[in-house]
Amino acid sequence: MASTALRVVYNNLIEHVRKYKILQSVNALADWDELVMMPPKGAESRGLQKTVLASLTHDLQTSPLIEKYLSELVTTQDDQKIVVKNDSEFDEYEISNIILIHKEFIRNTKITKELVERASELSSRGYHQWVEARKKSDWTLFQDTLQEWVNIRKEMSLLIEPNQNIADTLLDEYDPGMTCEQVAQVFEDVKKELIPLIQAIRKKVEENPEKYSDASLLAKIQAGADELFDQKEPFPVEKQTELSKQVAQELGFDFEMGRLDVSVHPFSTSFSTNDVRITTRYNTKEFVNGLAGTVHETGHSLYEAGLNPLYAYQPVQSALGTTIHESQSLFWERHVGLSKGFWRKWLPVAEELFPYLKQKKLSVDDIYRSANTVTLNNFIRIEADELTYPMHVILRFEIEKGLLDGSISVADVPKVWNAKVKEYLGLDVPNDAKGALQDVHWSSGAFAYFPTYLLGAMASAQISASIPDFEKHIEENNYAFLKNWLNENIHKRGTVTLTSNKLLKEATGSELNPKIFVNYLKTKYSALYDL
Amino acid sequence: MASTALRVVYNNLIEHVRKYKILQSVNALADWDELVMMPPKGAESRGLQKTVLASLTHDLQTSPLIEKYLSELVTTQDDQKIVVKNDSEFDEYEISNIILIHKEFIRNTKITKELVERASELSSRGYHQWVEARKKSDWTLFQDTLQEWVNIRKEMSLLIEPNQNIADTLLDEYDPGMTCEQVAQVFEDVKKELIPLIQAIRKKVEENPEKYSDASLLAKIQAGADELFDQKEPFPVEKQTELSKQVAQELGFDFEMGRLDVSVHPFSTSFSTNDVRITTRYNTKEFVNGLAGTVHETGHSLYEAGLNPLYAYQPVQSALGTTIHESQSLFWERHVGLSKGFWRKWLPVAEELFPYLKQKKLSVDDIYRSANTVTLNNFIRIEADELTYPMHVILRFEIEKGLLDGSISVADVPKVWNAKVKEYLGLDVPNDAKGALQDVHWSSGAFAYFPTYLLGAMASAQISASIPDFEKHIEENNYAFLKNWLNENIHKRGTVTLTSNKLLKEATGSELNPKIFVNYLKTKYSALYDL
Repeated sequence: MASTALRVVYNNLIEHVRKYKILQSVNALADWDELVMMPPKGAESRGLQKTVLASLTHDLQTSPLIEKYLSELVTTQDDQKIVVKNDSEFDEYEISNIILIHKEFIRNTKITKELVERASELSSRGYHQWVEARKKSDWTLFQDTLQEWVNIRKEMSLLIEPNQNIADTLLDEYDPGMTCEQVAQVFEDVKKELIPLIQAIRKKVEENPEKYSDASLLAKIQAGADELFDQKEPFPVEKQTELSKQVAQELGFDFEMGRLDVSVHPFSTSFSTNDVRITTRYNTKEFVNGLAGTVHETGHSLYEAGLNPLYAYQPVQSALGTTIHESQSLFWERHVGLSKGFWRKWLPVAEELFPYLKQKKLSVDDIYRSANTVTLNNFIRIEADELTYPMHVILRFEIEKGLLDGSISVADVPKVWNAKVKEYLGLDVPNDAKGALQDVHWSSGAFAYFPTYLLGAMASAQISASIPDFEKHIEENNYAFLKNWLNENIHKRGTVTLTSNKLLKEATGSELNPKIFVNYLKTKYSALYDL
Repeated sequence: MASTALRVVYNNLIEHVRKYKILQSVNALADWDELVMMPPKGAESRGLQKTVLASLTHDLQTSPLIEKYLSELVTTQDDQKIVVKNDSEFDEYEISNIILIHKEFIRNTKITKELVERASELSSRGYHQWVEARKKSDWTLFQDTLQEWVNIRKEMSLLIEPNQNIADTLLDEYDPGMTCEQVAQVFEDVKKELIPLIQAIRKKVEENPEKYSDASLLAKIQAGADELFDQKEPFPVEKQTELSKQVAQELGFDFEMGRLDVSVHPFSTSFSTNDVRITTRYNTKEFVNGLAGTVHETGHSLYEAGLNPLYAYQPVQSALGTTIHESQSLFWERHVGLSKGFWRKWLPVAEELFPYLKQKKLSVDDIYRSANTVTLNNFIRIEADELTYPMHVILRFEIEKGLLDGSISVADVPKVWNAKVKEYLGLDVPNDAKGALQDVHWSSGAFAYFPTYLLGAMASAQISASIPDFEKHIEENNYAFLKNWLNENIHKRGTVTLTSNKLLKEATGSELNPKIFVNYLKTKYSALYDL
């Protein structure tokens, strides 16, 4: 086929795909409004709006036009790999666009309508069963739902990729190109090193609780019964908002093209690179968590805002899965927001906003230690600190793997869960509400999502380690340098590399390397706990 | 055709139409967000979202399916009137739905794409030319745009209704069923009575300016150089918001299914009867205008929230044009919000919120007179009071009529305008920025919109006059009774009557009757100005 003719086909394909990508951004607006602005009784009509948007989006996504254009642009090799014909006609962004559109089209067309409806029905029913089960702390009320999800996800995976390991197909949705075997290997390396580190810290805390216990460290920055001021709200929402906005702006969040609001669960979304929106939540008894939430979501939003505007509403202009997305939020939350340099700059600002805090006369070291406390007696993933968090993820990954390969039955999950918490964290789970029922994810069958939280944390450490003079920039709070580095090496590349490992190799010189992450944690926590 | 078969066709038609009505509600959400929440740089991507929504909506609105269903449901009589076949099969809401869908389909399919694009281009260009012309107060910079609009609107009208008066086709879009001749007659009756009334008031003010002039009346409630408190903002935004929310809620606005925000121009919108949103704006030097804006928009929103939920996303479940919509906002703004009873209740509340106001020690009579001041030296429609406002509308209507029938040329508009302002209001227009260039409407070719402002005001007076014991309910601030009456007699009926006159006849016993409006104004202003 002649070059110009191929180009015309490509342009028609992109034009068609742009239309449903824009429609998806409309749906994102409907979601944002629902979580941030919508009055409570608007829920039913919002549901109708989203149903119509989903139906029109699906029509565009499964249009025979896409199949027609793709048949002229790609071919299947003997090894079943999809490749672009005449690939010298296209640049790397265009080739990746074609491959990504093909991949999306397979996912959108192979799964039967009946299966989509079963999944949708189960999501709704499963959520209510999970809420009920957690309330009663009774795993048996949830286990049948989980079994149904295992069955549905297996069916779906086999329709999408009949010749591929099911766990890999599921993982690919959140971390393109990553395999279950790779993850298992990497997590093994992490586990081996962190279990003894956590044990060593526990020993240290037991020896000297006044100096090291969570309670004594956290009390320094929280309001409690001993509060100096007779104030019910020593950290008022409007002052925390002011601090959050100042910090977000300094990190590079542009309020000309974004908003910061409050929602029940912090999140970030975007409708284009010029309209990114984040939310956080505030607790008037302390200010560090709300600020950490803002910094975390700012990291997500800088990624969305930093995507290459040349490829707006094309598949290459999207975040490369949840692993890389999480690497961006955690880069700012942990490697910047938990640093001494950060607190050297922002503690005085916070003290001006909160007279209560000023009275506490904290040193930078106090707040650094307090913000980096290892919460050794915590059972809840979302409340875990940076060091114990990996253990929460690893045990979930191992259980999901067992459920999919049949080596763990749904009925046995709590038993396995509790044994792993004992082994990895040294804790006895008191009940399933604080154990296997604590997270919402499985109620919607979101298998393979959990590992990307840890893969993202590892990637963030690896990225930090490969930025020139990283320590110096952190000490100097040179956020602009950091943001520009991420813009150039991560954000602008979007999904062009197709896999997270290829992006990491390009940006940091190697694929995901657990040693860097482990080394970061060992160095930091050995110093904090005088190991 | 058998009854069940017809029923199936009808249901299919409604199902199809519902889809685009829901999509239009998504577009309304995108508009609301744009005006209230969107960061400035989000404008470009919002434009793309709205273009895709418009294109998908248009596809649904012009689908051959609609034509097919309609061909089975309606027939054209010898007199060209469209009627429903076998109309005994359907109830009145269903018959109106079919007629309204047919009418919409004609409008959506008859106008050529080329004409739509010309109009869209001219809207954008026309707006910029109007801004420029108003800035320079130079009519010649705008007159060619206006001529283009006259041509386009004529072409469009002839495509929609080849056998109908052009002005009637335009008017029908805002006030279904109303004719230009009816409006001309009604306005003549109003003009004849109000010109002498305004002249009499002017005479009275000239005789006793201390007692009656705008300046002396308005000074009572505004902050000026003489302010008692050393405050730059005697009416802070957050306190005005509190007052607005209290008042809106008392009038019947349910914050479980609605929001009140701030925007540059106050407006109201709705995505369903359970999600209605209003905006207002505040001036920190006075509080009456911001509150009046809230009351006005609350009136619009009570209409939208009061539509019959049984017919959600069907044509009968929509407001009956701008005349009836404006009758609802003005009912609350003027007949409730400008009453003595209203101020007897709310002045003490406002005094608690604004210490500055309390110091002024206003009587209810003071604030009543001040809020009902006739601003005799005002040239601007949107700043006009209830009594002079009709004159602003009538002169625009007469000019539009002349432009369409060819009796006035675009070049002559300022001359005609200024002569009419002199005749109706006794004022000499100093320049076109304060004259023919003051309103944005003509820059988008929105002919026939202006008259509905006055028709709505007249309808609001007529509705008030026909509510049993209206004066007593106003004195007692019995808002629930008023709202229920409107819910039952106006809101729930939606567009089922097809024309505003039929709705008014049903609700008030007669079609639009200018005598009631004139009588209301004469009684009220004779008392205020001791005539």
